[in-house]
Amino acid sequence: MKAPRTVPVVLALLLGAAAATSQPAPRTMAEILAASTASDWRTPDPVETLYLELATGRVVIELAPAFAPRHVANVKALARAAYFDGLVILRVQDNYVVQWGDAGGTRPIAGGVPALPGEFEVTSAAMPPFTLLPDGDVYAPEVGFAAGFPAARDPAQGLGWLAHCYGMVGAGRDVATDSGGGTELYVVIGHAPRHLDRNVTLLGRVLLGMELLTALPRGSGSMGFYEQPEQRVPLLGMRVAADLPPAARTPLEVLRTDTPLFAELIESRRNRREEWFRSPAGHIELCNVPLPVRQPKS
Amino acid sequence: MKAPRTVPVVLALLLGAAAATSQPAPRTMAEILAASTASDWRTPDPVETLYLELATGRVVIELAPAFAPRHVANVKALARAAYFDGLVILRVQDNYVVQWGDAGGTRPIAGGVPALPGEFEVTSAAMPPFTLLPDGDVYAPEVGFAAGFPAARDPAQGLGWLAHCYGMVGAGRDVATDSGGGTELYVVIGHAPRHLDRNVTLLGRVLLGMELLTALPRGSGSMGFYEQPEQRVPLLGMRVAADLPPAARTPLEVLRTDTPLFAELIESRRNRREEWFRSPAGHIELCNVPLPVRQPKS
Repeated sequence: MKAPRTVPVVLALLLGAAAATSQPAPRTMAEILAASTASDWRTPDPVETLYLELATGRVVIELAPAFAPRHVANVKALARAAYFDGLVILRVQDNYVVQWGDAGGTRPIAGGVPALPGEFEVTSAAMPPFTLLPDGDVYAPEVGFAAGFPAARDPAQGLGWLAHCYGMVGAGRDVATDSGGGTELYVVIGHAPRHLDRNVTLLGRVLLGMELLTALPRGSGSMGFYEQPEQRVPLLGMRVAADLPPAARTPLEVLRTDTPLFAELIESRRNRREEWFRSPAGHIELCNVPLPVRQPKS
Repeated sequence: MKAPRTVPVVLALLLGAAAATSQPAPRTMAEILAASTASDWRTPDPVETLYLELATGRVVIELAPAFAPRHVANVKALARAAYFDGLVILRVQDNYVVQWGDAGGTRPIAGGVPALPGEFEVTSAAMPPFTLLPDGDVYAPEVGFAAGFPAARDPAQGLGWLAHCYGMVGAGRDVATDSGGGTELYVVIGHAPRHLDRNVTLLGRVLLGMELLTALPRGSGSMGFYEQPEQRVPLLGMRVAADLPPAARTPLEVLRTDTPLFAELIESRRNRREEWFRSPAGHIELCNVPLPVRQPKS
């Protein structure tokens, strides 16, 4: 890094830093992560972690029971009853979603229920602690992070909800708001379709393996559905991580979003100080905040 | 469509519609496009249209000479001198960019120049007419559309610039702001990296063929670079559409962004009235506004 480690006071003020005659220069994300300690990271609960198993590898999904408890419980129950085994990815719509489910609609629902009322919002009382982003949002009164997920809230309404950022996982539904439930799941693979917030149940986020979904051929049918059955990608299955022996799990750590270090990371992304940047933005939008995941050294 | 074609006055007011005792219900995008007339569409100038030719098909890029005249001229000159023929896609970074150029850095620069000063902004005087979006933006004082491209402006500074939305095409550069020029080009394939706005020269937008880029395997190297030369995707070439005989061109029309019909489309996307939606967002973010492209019937 060629960036100086101290900055003059005027520049520090321009950077939005606290007034001081001299202070350390803002750190880059790489420097912040390099300086992180064990307590800055958390290990996702294997009981609330799903593995989508494909022939090409494993997609790791962290579930969000704080926001969608009934959907999360249902998807886990379906997974444990092997409901998803042999189902298919049936839709890849460019700049939108990858979706999997029962193409024929004939698979008996085992272990869980076919549909649930939508879990589109939670009350403020049920909302996990919130790390507020300072730059506002086009869609919601407030945005930030809750339980490690990108989220939004409306204090006037006393409601909070998960946000449709890249990598978020939701439960597809038909027109009726109680027609979803998790038998058909989608992952956001494009620019955040935030207009879906509060319209469909989000229940988790992909932590690892996005590229196994995003590099799939796009479907040529309406809404990105594959038109030929042979184009569909079979699921080997979905598994709850806790049900696998520890040696068969994928160890992961996720950066906590409720720490001073994460606040510093946000600031480092609002004002990029890497040498390449000529004009740091001074702001950041919810879905552009990185949520780092690492595979711990064994 | 099951949506009613008229709405009572209270609902109309809630919808933000003008006060009236009764009026037509807002139309969906599908209905708006179906009702469009020839004058709602424009034909991109073939002199300002590039074809990126891959073995898998053609990617059509509309150039933005109003925003980056020198870069556009240089890329066209390089293309005409066959500079790009046989170069490669060398980087596919998930949720970020696809990038192509000279992997070895040894190709002689023919037809154009190797680098230019960045064209990061234009003055208000040089800015094409602007269709303002009503919902604000996290990154810029004002956002909207200019010359058919997603754009932003700062009236206080008297500057405007193109925005890094999905599908936008830019000229990669090194640390020096005059180290780009178009010999290496990238396309945004993920959530809009708006922090790049005003930091790198955008010069166009992909109109057709995004899926030929977005479904490529992600590179496993740092920043998504392919680690093995054989993973790179060769370019058959880049061509200026006007240089091809008309029969070899891809006829396209793009919805104009300076019409009442486009204003209605924006409103229809701010407040989705398709039956599926339970809670229309009431807002829209710049990079979520569709910019429809169609292939005219021959």
